[in-house]
Amino acid sequence: MLRRTAPRAFSAAAGSLRGLPLDGTTINENVKSAKYAVRGAVLERSMELQRRMAAGEKLPFDTIVPCNIGNPHACMQLPLSFHREVLSLCISPTLASDLPDVFKKDVVDRAKAYAAGLGGGVGAYTNSQGIPAVREEIAAFITERDGHPARADRIYLTNGASEGVRILLTCLLRSGGLKDGLLTPIPQYPLYSASLTLLGGTLVPYHLSEGGNWGVEMDNLRESLATARAGGVEVRGIAVINPGNPTGNILAEKQIKDIIDMAVEEKLVVLADEVYQSNIWKKDASFSSFKKVACDMGYTGEEGDERLQLVSFHSTSKGYYGECGLRGGYMEVHGIGAEVRAELYKLSSLSLCSNTIGQLATGIMINPPKKGDPSYDTFTKERDDILSSLKRRSDMVHKALNSMEGVTCNQADGALYAFPRIRLSNKAKKAAEAKGVPADEFYCLEILDQSGIVLVPGSGFGQEEGTLHFRTTFLPAEETMHETLKRLSVAHEKFMDEHRD
Amino acid sequence: MLRRTAPRAFSAAAGSLRGLPLDGTTINENVKSAKYAVRGAVLERSMELQRRMAAGEKLPFDTIVPCNIGNPHACMQLPLSFHREVLSLCISPTLASDLPDVFKKDVVDRAKAYAAGLGGGVGAYTNSQGIPAVREEIAAFITERDGHPARADRIYLTNGASEGVRILLTCLLRSGGLKDGLLTPIPQYPLYSASLTLLGGTLVPYHLSEGGNWGVEMDNLRESLATARAGGVEVRGIAVINPGNPTGNILAEKQIKDIIDMAVEEKLVVLADEVYQSNIWKKDASFSSFKKVACDMGYTGEEGDERLQLVSFHSTSKGYYGECGLRGGYMEVHGIGAEVRAELYKLSSLSLCSNTIGQLATGIMINPPKKGDPSYDTFTKERDDILSSLKRRSDMVHKALNSMEGVTCNQADGALYAFPRIRLSNKAKKAAEAKGVPADEFYCLEILDQSGIVLVPGSGFGQEEGTLHFRTTFLPAEETMHETLKRLSVAHEKFMDEHRD
Repeated sequence: MLRRTAPRAFSAAAGSLRGLPLDGTTINENVKSAKYAVRGAVLERSMELQRRMAAGEKLPFDTIVPCNIGNPHACMQLPLSFHREVLSLCISPTLASDLPDVFKKDVVDRAKAYAAGLGGGVGAYTNSQGIPAVREEIAAFITERDGHPARADRIYLTNGASEGVRILLTCLLRSGGLKDGLLTPIPQYPLYSASLTLLGGTLVPYHLSEGGNWGVEMDNLRESLATARAGGVEVRGIAVINPGNPTGNILAEKQIKDIIDMAVEEKLVVLADEVYQSNIWKKDASFSSFKKVACDMGYTGEEGDERLQLVSFHSTSKGYYGECGLRGGYMEVHGIGAEVRAELYKLSSLSLCSNTIGQLATGIMINPPKKGDPSYDTFTKERDDILSSLKRRSDMVHKALNSMEGVTCNQADGALYAFPRIRLSNKAKKAAEAKGVPADEFYCLEILDQSGIVLVPGSGFGQEEGTLHFRTTFLPAEETMHETLKRLSVAHEKFMDEHRD
Repeated sequence: MLRRTAPRAFSAAAGSLRGLPLDGTTINENVKSAKYAVRGAVLERSMELQRRMAAGEKLPFDTIVPCNIGNPHACMQLPLSFHREVLSLCISPTLASDLPDVFKKDVVDRAKAYAAGLGGGVGAYTNSQGIPAVREEIAAFITERDGHPARADRIYLTNGASEGVRILLTCLLRSGGLKDGLLTPIPQYPLYSASLTLLGGTLVPYHLSEGGNWGVEMDNLRESLATARAGGVEVRGIAVINPGNPTGNILAEKQIKDIIDMAVEEKLVVLADEVYQSNIWKKDASFSSFKKVACDMGYTGEEGDERLQLVSFHSTSKGYYGECGLRGGYMEVHGIGAEVRAELYKLSSLSLCSNTIGQLATGIMINPPKKGDPSYDTFTKERDDILSSLKRRSDMVHKALNSMEGVTCNQADGALYAFPRIRLSNKAKKAAEAKGVPADEFYCLEILDQSGIVLVPGSGFGQEEGTLHFRTTFLPAEETMHETLKRLSVAHEKFMDEHRD
């Protein structure tokens, strides 16, 4: 059956790679080039400091304060009782019958409903697109949120929103030397820049307007598109983060409408990153989804209506749940035809399915207890406590930042971050240059060494040439916030004093 | 700050894509070309039949039997009590104090230990490489299994083994028109072929020997390598699945040694897919890891010893746990230098971290209760019941297959599958051709329509030219196995009778 002759392998050919089979010279260059600052050099240093503290070294602070990443539970935010209880019962279904008085009826009922939808429990692979019952829940949530119908077969459950973005970009960005590009806001969440580099795509920047509270300026957006096209880039889509990360900007419906108009006219797929949709701080502001505005405009997305192609992303990691570790999320496709939907399904099926606990957490997130349910009062209190505390913390952080020398910061209307601009002296810039690091990274490293507070340099998100920023979350526990901001101010003042021109 | 001039976008350029922004003509061709048969046409048909049955249609069977995928819990295999109880407590830590008499001490202790290692509980992002405490557990497990030291910093926790394979191949396969290839067994698990297509790599097949119980033949392997190199492929690594999927072959240490010798000599990274290491059925056979044999041979993998570069994959989905839905797994790298390890870390951090429940499930899997622990007896009974039942089912399936006309099947020494060869008549082959499907797929579709049993055509895994196979799991519940095999035999007989030349 097999040919049994055995010519010697051409061992000489083994030497055509200069390095080892897999080392810094033979690794995929796109991997090397990708940057992901949220977990970059400043975080590395903070981990080193943590180790040194654990080993008994005396540093100018007692704790490392992780303001580098939107990770609420790491900052002592508590999970929601209803959500976790349902998940416990899904993992150990017999707890409900063993302990009939422990769990409220709506907890038990929800766990039972999921068990029926799961078949083999949480230990079985699900449909690659996600548990049908959960997709039905999500469709009902979107329908109610937007006032327009949503369909379960257009929803794909994913390990966090990041996986959805990866799958969608894998479909969108063609290989083989084509210069496919994505319009990406600057500043942006570096998942987009890193994914583009990794997939061989081109980042087409459109600068948000710091003077206009980080809003999108259409003239500027169209200019970016034109410039990229003139340079031979095939611009395939536009990423929008709303509410903004790191900016906190909330798009008005008019702005969303303008972006949709342009996407239709210019044949761009819209990637709407809407993971902060429950984090709205500005009084009287509200979140409008791209899907809602699209449907208002008459782009139904129904079979045959592919004039607007839109993919929206959501996650369990943010909002008031902050369930980052469970890696739950979904994407909803709109105006995407059956052939591409089948390809998205195939890509999902390559990793079999997203994790079941994350899928269920997504269902519970968008379908929490309702008025009259036994768990409703506890749920609303827990939710409101978290949201009102986040609002207070946001105000504290912005006030403190704007009182610091050389720092100005737009108020974040939504999301979990402040993105202040910092003005550093020439002396500071030269000190950074001498160390071979960007000035904003130098600043963040110095602040870390002084205060233990982990910030992310603005260069990790992108910033207007000649400007410097950093991103901080406002997630440290409220009772520690005053102290944290004090530490930051003192460290900042020290930095400014030491680097005066 | 921004230029305010607004030239009109070159809208004409928007037309350079022939189709819609994202449709079957504009999607990444590599996505379209990738095939993943485990969830392909036969499964699609089974889902359609399921819908028709649910709608009341009368079919020749009452149930769909999913033999297409190694998904034990979907076939009524129960989870292990200790494992699930620990996870419940990790999700709802207060249950332990609320209900002091419900959980055994070792369950509570383990959950507490994980809580200490997690910091923010299961809701917080972990270190991108995985929870340090779990990586320490895994390192201890590997050290004990192999008799050679393992290190926590060489272990990366992943969402199932699939994600590890994706991350590693993303590093290994360079873009930019290079013809980077991976030696891949035929038959193989289609994750490898699909990932290679997706990443623009080249599958370099090496045929396993059906006559030699699906073992690896070194002459054949070297010939494949030579042929590929002569054709201009830069062969970067070799994938080995041990125990084999779909073949069930267990590699002897001598064979592993030969493969390692070749990998060192030919500068190939070894990808050792060892997810079935706890599924060993052959009397007196045992599993040897590539890592163990490599260390026995003196390839320490320590910093500076990169002569052999090896990456091993493991998963919670198989073994006796079958926790597919939780998406737990890890990869261990050996002889991979710090620069590449940092890149693997960066790729992991792009999706923040793998899901925490899957991470903890991985820890519990490789560190189950020990003799003397309160949960030990229950654990060993549950484990042994599952393994002995799987062994009996494996025997039933192989006996039934080999008694069917035109079917021969090597006994699976390990893993969860049988991969019989089927000999079909010319009439059957012509009928398939008339329908435009491969003959093995035609056979599987006909068997499905008759019996409700979902098989996977051999072409999905690859097979020697001119031969036909299918893969079946032996996972249907033991009490239903006799009936299932009867249905299969009857459907097979009918097919053979109807297609006699």
